Amino acid sequence: MALDRPDLRARARAEREARTQLQARRVRRTVLRRDGMRSEVAGSDGSTRWLLNFCGNDYLGLASHFQVSGALQDAAALHGVGSGGSHLVSGHHALHDALEREIADWLQLPAALLFGSGFAANLAVVQGLLGEGDACVQDRLNHASLIDAARLAGCRLRRYPHADAQGALRQLRTLPEGAAMLATDGVFSMDGDIAPLRELAIVARVQQALLYVDDAHGIGVVGPDGRGSVVEARLDVEAVPLQLVTLGKALGGCGAVLAGDADLIGHLAETARPYVYTTALPPAVAGAALTAVRIARHEHWRRERLTALVQRFRARALRLGLDLMPSQTPIQPLRCGDNATALAMSAALDAAGFWVAAIRPPTVPDGQARLRVTLSAAHGDADVDALVDALATARDACADAARRTRP
Amino acid sequence: MALDRPDLRARARAEREARTQLQARRVRRTVLRRDGMRSEVAGSDGSTRWLLNFCGNDYLGLASHFQVSGALQDAAALHGVGSGGSHLVSGHHALHDALEREIADWLQLPAALLFGSGFAANLAVVQGLLGEGDACVQDRLNHASLIDAARLAGCRLRRYPHADAQGALRQLRTLPEGAAMLATDGVFSMDGDIAPLRELAIVARVQQALLYVDDAHGIGVVGPDGRGSVVEARLDVEAVPLQLVTLGKALGGCGAVLAGDADLIGHLAETARPYVYTTALPPAVAGAALTAVRIARHEHWRRERLTALVQRFRARALRLGLDLMPSQTPIQPLRCGDNATALAMSAALDAAGFWVAAIRPPTVPDGQARLRVTLSAAHGDADVDALVDALATARDACADAARRTRP
Repeated sequence: MALDRPDLRARARAEREARTQLQARRVRRTVLRRDGMRSEVAGSDGSTRWLLNFCGNDYLGLASHFQVSGALQDAAALHGVGSGGSHLVSGHHALHDALEREIADWLQLPAALLFGSGFAANLAVVQGLLGEGDACVQDRLNHASLIDAARLAGCRLRRYPHADAQGALRQLRTLPEGAAMLATDGVFSMDGDIAPLRELAIVARVQQALLYVDDAHGIGVVGPDGRGSVVEARLDVEAVPLQLVTLGKALGGCGAVLAGDADLIGHLAETARPYVYTTALPPAVAGAALTAVRIARHEHWRRERLTALVQRFRARALRLGLDLMPSQTPIQPLRCGDNATALAMSAALDAAGFWVAAIRPPTVPDGQARLRVTLSAAHGDADVDALVDALATARDACADAARRTRP
Repeated sequence: MALDRPDLRARARAEREARTQLQARRVRRTVLRRDGMRSEVAGSDGSTRWLLNFCGNDYLGLASHFQVSGALQDAAALHGVGSGGSHLVSGHHALHDALEREIADWLQLPAALLFGSGFAANLAVVQGLLGEGDACVQDRLNHASLIDAARLAGCRLRRYPHADAQGALRQLRTLPEGAAMLATDGVFSMDGDIAPLRELAIVARVQQALLYVDDAHGIGVVGPDGRGSVVEARLDVEAVPLQLVTLGKALGGCGAVLAGDADLIGHLAETARPYVYTTALPPAVAGAALTAVRIARHEHWRRERLTALVQRFRARALRLGLDLMPSQTPIQPLRCGDNATALAMSAALDAAGFWVAAIRPPTVPDGQARLRVTLSAAHGDADVDALVDALATARDACADAARRTRP
């Protein structure tokens, strides 16, 4: 009998064709230089142009802050680049330690553990704590890495409607009596809204589930001193034994830190495969993050500035009838509906000098393509005003074009 | 009916107790400073001491090379720290691009894709290409991330005896006709031996499986110009459509690059969740890696030096009757058997000024605890000679102690 397995290359080509049909192709744009929130990007024809970036996650303007990059340079001069090993063999450095202590101190939590990425940290939490017979109950709009973490753990995965604590309770109630985790984003990455953490904490307590909050988009931005969604909700380590602090968004670097209960953190440090079997981040990257955290903790004006810009953007955009989603964070998505509209809007903004990426399925649910506008403390008032005007103009042009092409 | 779920904190504490009984606790040691291959480490009592590091993965001595850390500093001064976003939104930088092109050029492969870690890249390859109904056949000693990748993908996972191409064939033959991947480490991380890639390539071709090689410990070290295990085995992109190049070991930095077939790489860049849903590495880290690759490609003396040290180590160690595993790479494990012996050996070496970590289950199979000695081009002849003498002394002392404690 002749063997006839599917060819993976042919399958990849066929799927690319299908994405082309659905206007779901994804193309990387290359940044050549940055100057504040302006990025010089390469065009496909070899030309370059400057765009005002409204789609990054540099909420506090720390990614190119001179003190943060200065810290990276100083630490590189002293300590070189690679850590040379995993944390448990010989890759753990005093700068990693200092960063963990700084985060624990900031959040007033007993312990913290540095990972190379939030993706790895999420995998570690769920795989490191849950197994077969256990369950992970998640918000339907949680980050991909949390969903994948439950798949990897081999536990039951149950999802509840977005931000619906009653839905979470229903899911937990119907579960058999294995260990349970209730996992949610703090601020939802593609919607910008904040999880109902106080309600979820009650559900978790009643159902004896561990509440885990991925605060990738909340830390530095939300709550007193930027301490994030959990502190904003006035929840302590008993209510939220573990939370994720990303270093790659408001803190302007890369990597992530789990913070919380010492027994749980200690367990993950010794056993979680995504922690144990990977090379530690360069000490210099941890040194840069340490400086960024100190700035984020103490420079309150950055959050005040950001809040003012969010209010300015929303007031002006709503006055012009733009279909914003209900968010109070720097993530301000504008509904577009279908992929074609989102892409046309993004292209029109590009032509006007603004970089706002079209976010399409599978990153968001089908039929909910959007422009994910993000604001930064490093944007100017005039930048935001000009963006809103360009959004309204693009919306009108797209509506005109749609009317013209309709039969 | 009262709910009674297991408490995850109590479970973590109980497992820690169990590890203590098995002498399987893992404790991080903190590096304060490095000077070449010497590391100043912190003791638990607040004291510090200098150890000669023989357990890192800095095979070519590039982790603290002045040109590599200089490149990191220069790029940080120009481009700041964080990339600010994922590659597909706004985080993709010209330095990421340049690094991908340099790796593709080095390996003479059509395409390359940068990841934040080898762990993430392995997850992406398997999850991005295989699903339910497909299968991933793996060497029993493959890296944890490859095993986890198959779990995450939801495909069948079949493992064959270590380095046994016939075993791989048997596993593939009995599989139903979904798509299949044959995945292997190039150089095995805890054993130091090289996979039988030419035989595996034949098996993969006959069975219409895609051969994927994780060359984390081979790249830079093995093969002409350090081009790795695949080139050493004289296999082209048809035979090995995808391979993993890590930046965190011989290349002295952090991150990893997938290299190979353009259709497959393009597919992963658009669809693989561990690529799409994560923040891009800081451009400056890519800039440092670019410099490291150029040094690794062209400074052949580093590999020649490393080869000479490996031969020197083995000749001297075997003469003293040390129980080395059969490896020709810089990974030179010494068999210890039980955890207690491995820990005692490691402690005796520590007292003599050498840092060699005890590797215990579950990182290696039960009963196969070992000292994983690793060599670097930055070690001196006298360093290696002194290490071998210390290993022999430690072995004799451990054997004496064992005789004394035997009833």
